[in-house]
Amino acid sequence: MSEKLFSQSTGMFIAETHTEGVTWFFSVDRFLVEGKSQYQQYQIVDIPVWGKTLFLDYKIQSSLLDEYVYHESMVQPAMTVHPNPKKVLVAGGGEGATLWQALQHNTVEKADMVDLDEELIQWVKVHMTEWHHGCFDDPRVTLVHQDARKWIEDHKGHGYDVILSDLPGPHEGSPARMLYTKEYFQHVAESLSDDGVFVLQSGACNETYPYLFSQIFATLDSMKDTFAYVRGYYGLVTTFQMPWGFILASKKHDPMALTQEDVAARHATRGVSNRYYTPRFHQAMFTLPEYMLRAIEKHGKILTDAEPFLWTA
Amino acid sequence: MSEKLFSQSTGMFIAETHTEGVTWFFSVDRFLVEGKSQYQQYQIVDIPVWGKTLFLDYKIQSSLLDEYVYHESMVQPAMTVHPNPKKVLVAGGGEGATLWQALQHNTVEKADMVDLDEELIQWVKVHMTEWHHGCFDDPRVTLVHQDARKWIEDHKGHGYDVILSDLPGPHEGSPARMLYTKEYFQHVAESLSDDGVFVLQSGACNETYPYLFSQIFATLDSMKDTFAYVRGYYGLVTTFQMPWGFILASKKHDPMALTQEDVAARHATRGVSNRYYTPRFHQAMFTLPEYMLRAIEKHGKILTDAEPFLWTA
Amino acid sequence: MSEKLFSQSTGMFIAETHTEGVTWFFSVDRFLVEGKSQYQQYQIVDIPVWGKTLFLDYKIQSSLLDEYVYHESMVQPAMTVHPNPKKVLVAGGGEGATLWQALQHNTVEKADMVDLDEELIQWVKVHMTEWHHGCFDDPRVTLVHQDARKWIEDHKGHGYDVILSDLPGPHEGSPARMLYTKEYFQHVAESLSDDGVFVLQSGACNETYPYLFSQIFATLDSMKDTFAYVRGYYGLVTTFQMPWGFILASKKHDPMALTQEDVAARHATRGVSNRYYTPRFHQAMFTLPEYMLRAIEKHGKILTDAEPFLWTA
Amino acid sequence: MSEKLFSQSTGMFIAETHTEGVTWFFSVDRFLVEGKSQYQQYQIVDIPVWGKTLFLDYKIQSSLLDEYVYHESMVQPAMTVHPNPKKVLVAGGGEGATLWQALQHNTVEKADMVDLDEELIQWVKVHMTEWHHGCFDDPRVTLVHQDARKWIEDHKGHGYDVILSDLPGPHEGSPARMLYTKEYFQHVAESLSDDGVFVLQSGACNETYPYLFSQIFATLDSMKDTFAYVRGYYGLVTTFQMPWGFILASKKHDPMALTQEDVAARHATRGVSNRYYTPRFHQAMFTLPEYMLRAIEKHGKILTDAEPFLWTA
Repeated sequence: MSEKLFSQSTGMFIAETHTEGVTWFFSVDRFLVEGKSQYQQYQIVDIPVWGKTLFLDYKIQSSLLDEYVYHESMVQPAMTVHPNPKKVLVAGGGEGATLWQALQHNTVEKADMVDLDEELIQWVKVHMTEWHHGCFDDPRVTLVHQDARKWIEDHKGHGYDVILSDLPGPHEGSPARMLYTKEYFQHVAESLSDDGVFVLQSGACNETYPYLFSQIFATLDSMKDTFAYVRGYYGLVTTFQMPWGFILASKKHDPMALTQEDVAARHATRGVSNRYYTPRFHQAMFTLPEYMLRAIEKHGKILTDAEPFLWTA
Repeated sequence: MSEKLFSQSTGMFIAETHTEGVTWFFSVDRFLVEGKSQYQQYQIVDIPVWGKTLFLDYKIQSSLLDEYVYHESMVQPAMTVHPNPKKVLVAGGGEGATLWQALQHNTVEKADMVDLDEELIQWVKVHMTEWHHGCFDDPRVTLVHQDARKWIEDHKGHGYDVILSDLPGPHEGSPARMLYTKEYFQHVAESLSDDGVFVLQSGACNETYPYLFSQIFATLDSMKDTFAYVRGYYGLVTTFQMPWGFILASKKHDPMALTQEDVAARHATRGVSNRYYTPRFHQAMFTLPEYMLRAIEKHGKILTDAEPFLWTA
Repeated sequence: MSEKLFSQSTGMFIAETHTEGVTWFFSVDRFLVEGKSQYQQYQIVDIPVWGKTLFLDYKIQSSLLDEYVYHESMVQPAMTVHPNPKKVLVAGGGEGATLWQALQHNTVEKADMVDLDEELIQWVKVHMTEWHHGCFDDPRVTLVHQDARKWIEDHKGHGYDVILSDLPGPHEGSPARMLYTKEYFQHVAESLSDDGVFVLQSGACNETYPYLFSQIFATLDSMKDTFAYVRGYYGLVTTFQMPWGFILASKKHDPMALTQEDVAARHATRGVSNRYYTPRFHQAMFTLPEYMLRAIEKHGKILTDAEPFLWTA
Repeated sequence: MSEKLFSQSTGMFIAETHTEGVTWFFSVDRFLVEGKSQYQQYQIVDIPVWGKTLFLDYKIQSSLLDEYVYHESMVQPAMTVHPNPKKVLVAGGGEGATLWQALQHNTVEKADMVDLDEELIQWVKVHMTEWHHGCFDDPRVTLVHQDARKWIEDHKGHGYDVILSDLPGPHEGSPARMLYTKEYFQHVAESLSDDGVFVLQSGACNETYPYLFSQIFATLDSMKDTFAYVRGYYGLVTTFQMPWGFILASKKHDPMALTQEDVAARHATRGVSNRYYTPRFHQAMFTLPEYMLRAIEKHGKILTDAEPFLWTA
């Protein structure tokens, strides 16, 4: 019997249960920050292989391993689809990477970021430079700490070209709960310009939990008078251990109409150079797997303020 | 303090460590079979949400949740790419689902399956009917328990139209180790017909572990005189918690040359109806993410009998 | 990065949560039996270092490592305290080791064992010989599968010399719930002889969960007219990862009055040879730590059929 | 399917593997401090039920739940056995509780504490007041950060009445390795007064890992010319999830010769009031279970500088 067997220095972990079937134990080498704000628990930690990683309420948010996959997927298709995005709004987006991605388009003149949790963002500024690259100091940026729904209701007619919704899921009790309903999407539409584009992170794009994606899709798809084009797509986020879904709702411009060459041309003009969302990959990203089409068919129902999302299918 | 807090009936688990960063604890409701053959440890278990699941050497192999995603990805592109597959070989393929997928093409006249582990397959026959659908009894099938490399060396000139390699990864000490080398691929080529197609499962297609995929790709890609077309693709296997890679090496027929309509026509003629690999999805599946292209560039090296795969990058 | 780091063959586990503070993951090498009877879930498994081990409802019951510590503690003090135990009853005692321990005293003429779970005991007979040593076939033994409380109510005046209660804890919903109340203890007294001895396993004897022990103690201690001597003691059960408590209630004979020499003499006469409960250890075992005395003071309350044990303190 | 089942906020853990058989996952509510000094990794955390807890190299050291059990066991028997302890040395003892326990005896005029790890003790001073009660500021105390063996070698003839060794186990590579050998114990003897008492924490006192205890015992027991009385005893430390062993080596005074009344008298005179080591408990604590006596017989061998402790039995 070896020393190792008697009392091994095993280590620190953050565990996340994903469905009844599996719990992930992430190994933590160091806790850079660990605390609880008014809104959520947060940890910024070092994980072997994954590198620096943010957890909120013990759910993994992004890691240095491939935060670019998540954030390019979150931002770049919507920015690219709009022919000339000048005014941009980020709802949520704590790490600052969503904001940074948007600012890569040199067309942008004004970028507002509305995130509730000031305490978290103070820590992000200190520890997550690799995400935000200091862009909170960009003169085009206004950072506000308040409820994003209220901000949007207060900015009707403001004419945002692109609104990027990078919020936590609509968990029961979450302040984000009412940012996934038809009424809210109507407010979004009214604060967008006439050819505005809206995109939101929409949860898992896999076989075990396609419910949130399906219902956001069905809800936006029921607003065809407002959003002429509603398209689902996904990013291969290793950090999340599953493909991650996004839904893009556009008043005038259809993402599927953009060719590889169109994407390449816009990126070249605007000084954008991506590592995941490349021109070659555009069409493939918007090709949803069959199981998601079946899930939309089967589970799609319309989310409203009166009946918001329930994790129960 | 509640009873639950004192001594909760927590349960049974199978754990798999995937890189130093994370360990997955799968909850097990029931063990249907648990044992150790001459070659490996095996469990057939029930997992909540995932359903019946096979583990070999504590690595998850496939589950009822989406075995069809893995097995259609494993089999259907290669079968579809060949214009008239009559003679098929499955190397490995313990669950019987790879064999079953191949037999869906009514062109098939003869299907040989060579899997080392007779003990495991006895249990598969009893407990995994949802995978093999009784196809071991199909009159076109010959099931042999021996080393697949030896079988292939003994069948040079046999003229297989499609060879499907559904083997465990080349772990040190594994009998499958020498079934991932250039010399072996040369034997494969010689047992294929003049327009034969070879495909093999090739490991993770994600950011954490792209090494195996990259090196198989580089090895086959160095054999251009033999395999005119070498194409990587992936399936979104929820059970594996990551996209899974496959590499198709073809003497004459280029998968990328097949249109959606071509795929649809072949499936219709041959009586094939898929749930994941549909005509619509063909091109998207063959579009690898950028990080895999970078990994091939960076980590691609040629695997040989003298220097087979090492998990060290 | 080594193979081990990519996908280590980690293994199988049974996990038991003990208070909110800690969960134990026991490594399982083999599942000998795994199933669910009418009354409980059960597993007989091999654990490294601990050896063969029984779990009921995912709570560890005993292991080859030191089942003798638990079962000698359960049985030997009560048997030794009685001057001439002829008629013995085991309530519960699934592994058969409690019965076997009692039968070591050559004074025993009749030993009844009443355990509800016939299915479990069938498996015990096959796989746990090291516990029961075949004693179910001893001509002195009667094995009955029914509720122990009913048996005892039906045997008033039967004159058992010793009653050994080796039952699961009074979890909500457990059939054992009503075998930890004052009314039940009164029935026990009536089925005992005039100088009968009763002992029951009474849960953890540690700082985190002294509640069950304290309340059983208080309940029996409130019955001084019936049981002149009520004494708590404990065994150092490594398998349980905590000291384990027992309470002995005796109509006439005080355990504390027995000297080391008395114990030695009785064991010699009766052919008993113990590995844990030795004459030398008798007095020390009955010396409860201060924290248990404080817990009895603080948490002791009387358990009745109307208000049975609640895990809530 | 409920929200809870999809992605439960599971939490943070520190895991410690204890033999190949079991790994403990301690739930962590908060990390008060987490870091790595020159000598070891350390965490001071909050654990439900256990309260504030110190880990060193991922091994649990003590918790508010019952640090008094460990530290009274560590200190009080030796202090009590000496008839008039004036000069005391603590080797190690990072939390400051060993020092504090010794200072409870009003006979003490001088207490030296020698602990290598200054960084750790800085944090202990801030976060672990419940352990040390500010006693580092007691005018009788000298705190030195150096190797305890060197200190003791430099203090031969110093005439310590009591030396308390509260060090980490002799893990390979640990600075404490050479503080568990016969040569070191000889140095200890020379720095003690003529009737001095030495005690050291000696590891697990259970069935799975009795090796360290057995070998320390055998080593001291082989020095009968120096230490007339060598006595093993144990404390019921819930935090450690096993009984914990200590060995007391005394030049003149036999612990077993002290009656309950003797202990009570000394405590009364010296103003000592314990919660675990009470007069009533003295004799029981020194009564080792049979399995430890068997282990000493079987595994006891003499530890020397040339052949120090190996975890291999």
